[in-house]
Amino acid sequence: MNIDGIPTRTLRAHPERGAIDIIDQTRLPHALHWLRVATLAEAAHAIRAMQVRGAPLIGATAAYGLAIGLGERADDAGLQEAFDTLWATRPTAVNLHWALARMHGLLAPLAPAERCAAAWREAAAIAEEDVAQNLAIGQHGLGLLRQIARRQSSALNIMTHCNAGWLATVDWGTALSPVYVAHDAGLPVHVWVSETRPRNQGLLTAWELAQHGVPHTVIADNAAGLLLRQGRIDAVIVGADRIAANGDVANKVGTYLKALACADNDVPFYVAAPRSTLDFDLPEGRHIKIEERDGDEFRLLHGLDARGVPSALHQLPAGEAVANPAFDVTPARLVTAIITERGVCPASRDGLLGLYPEENHG
Amino acid sequence: MNIDGIPTRTLRAHPERGAIDIIDQTRLPHALHWLRVATLAEAAHAIRAMQVRGAPLIGATAAYGLAIGLGERADDAGLQEAFDTLWATRPTAVNLHWALARMHGLLAPLAPAERCAAAWREAAAIAEEDVAQNLAIGQHGLGLLRQIARRQSSALNIMTHCNAGWLATVDWGTALSPVYVAHDAGLPVHVWVSETRPRNQGLLTAWELAQHGVPHTVIADNAAGLLLRQGRIDAVIVGADRIAANGDVANKVGTYLKALACADNDVPFYVAAPRSTLDFDLPEGRHIKIEERDGDEFRLLHGLDARGVPSALHQLPAGEAVANPAFDVTPARLVTAIITERGVCPASRDGLLGLYPEENHG
Repeated sequence: MNIDGIPTRTLRAHPERGAIDIIDQTRLPHALHWLRVATLAEAAHAIRAMQVRGAPLIGATAAYGLAIGLGERADDAGLQEAFDTLWATRPTAVNLHWALARMHGLLAPLAPAERCAAAWREAAAIAEEDVAQNLAIGQHGLGLLRQIARRQSSALNIMTHCNAGWLATVDWGTALSPVYVAHDAGLPVHVWVSETRPRNQGLLTAWELAQHGVPHTVIADNAAGLLLRQGRIDAVIVGADRIAANGDVANKVGTYLKALACADNDVPFYVAAPRSTLDFDLPEGRHIKIEERDGDEFRLLHGLDARGVPSALHQLPAGEAVANPAFDVTPARLVTAIITERGVCPASRDGLLGLYPEENHG
Repeated sequence: MNIDGIPTRTLRAHPERGAIDIIDQTRLPHALHWLRVATLAEAAHAIRAMQVRGAPLIGATAAYGLAIGLGERADDAGLQEAFDTLWATRPTAVNLHWALARMHGLLAPLAPAERCAAAWREAAAIAEEDVAQNLAIGQHGLGLLRQIARRQSSALNIMTHCNAGWLATVDWGTALSPVYVAHDAGLPVHVWVSETRPRNQGLLTAWELAQHGVPHTVIADNAAGLLLRQGRIDAVIVGADRIAANGDVANKVGTYLKALACADNDVPFYVAAPRSTLDFDLPEGRHIKIEERDGDEFRLLHGLDARGVPSALHQLPAGEAVANPAFDVTPARLVTAIITERGVCPASRDGLLGLYPEENHG
């Protein structure tokens, strides 16, 4: 999508230099800062510290991180070390583990001398697949949005949570891909952007929507229920960090509350995600481990001071206890449909297997 | 309740000086600053700028504000000006209008020379009634909490939203009164405190609970659904800004989402409020006007900088559109019970009239 009118991806690979460039998303929306990642440690840090975030982009970055690690050491021990280091960075994101398993499966049988170049090629394939899948998600989502738009004369009002946009992927986004595809197709769309405390990824969503010229309004997470009850939202679309085989959805904490409010007000609640987010080995969402993150993410507030300098404030006295779970699980019964690169399906085992019959092992 | 171990109220009246002292709650939790309010304009500003907040404390402050205004000018025009000025400060809080109507009804028939002294006496009566009513709410709430505690061995886990504590009233609080009464009675209680974006009144709740020694943990508003689904909450108790005759509850934005999550997880959702919050003239919650507040409440973040100085940051570029509704309406069907100074009742017209039969006019 566009930054300052120029089509841009979130990740630039430089295989010849054994490095990638990423946008340091911890500095958005206040500063657009590209960061060179040239070591395994830097790649692991980028994922752990959420300089890159969003399940698909984490997957692509981990794949490139493995390639970078093999540039340091390509024997079996080096491969294993890179794999283990990257695997441990984030517990919930299934794409991370999917991308690493795919890379490992390809690379382990190869001679060490061949691994590094093969890793760069495979990481690039993962990145290209992400872009193509996300565009397909957008096109399938557009079909749903056109159905809603046919019933009304005003602009479509879409609500989203967190950032499942262009910044969370290599390009297009997942939840926001239908929005971008609709906007580019001339369908009038307005996005209600939920702040997404405690890390405020909604501000990333607002930033990327602004860059691409999509009308939007930012709200506190608490306001989502009111807007839904007032009939001001036509559909909610969110991304996912992991979708269980039965259609339960792990996503940024607060997603479940929006799904409840959609159900209470007969507003469709869609989850958009590529195949790599589906975990057919996980029967139900209740088995998903919820990542508990550092309370300082909650205690520290980030913004620009009076001189326009990025700065942080403590909002709580040091002694105050804080809990900071990063995800929640929305039960499949609250999900109207799942949008993947293969189409739209009910949030159920049968629905998902209908799109991915090759996963039906009995 | 206690500040530094000393029983303290949120409002101190000085009739002899024609002034009151209030805690400037916009500076909490970072600084405890008492503010002298000695003019009608200062009283109106204190309510409008949320230096005082919480429906009961707004009512008491408005009553004293009228007394202060009559000290400036006590003829009919002066009474009307004070009444109109204070009435316009906050559109949603029913206690504000209730207290002003009560004061006006008493004062208008009096000779101007008698009004000021009578106003100070009546404001004091309103404040004393608030304290007595809130203690009664706490005692009735304790009964509910004891019933839940009987079924389990661990500490009671109560979740609340916004600040409906001691700071929102003259003393005790509404939603937190049962917590304080239970804590003082030796029942082990732990409170999950929702941050309550965008104004973060949850930090006031954490501050007052800490002052009184009640164990608590602060969470992002988004985490409430997860905790309820995990079975970690025994009851949610919130206050109210206005309760319609059918039991619909207007309260701080985000309340409705918590009520939905309670219903989805079979956790009781209680609303605690005194008589003055009940609006028997309002048939249903959908008639309640929702106050839309300045977007800068959302854009600006407040906390302590690295040197411990209270400071503010801009979290959004100036051009970003923001919506900032202050309240939402929770339908009565999601409210397990309403706790008032007279007892506990179902959230329905019959339930409320059972406690207040004198309001049954046919």
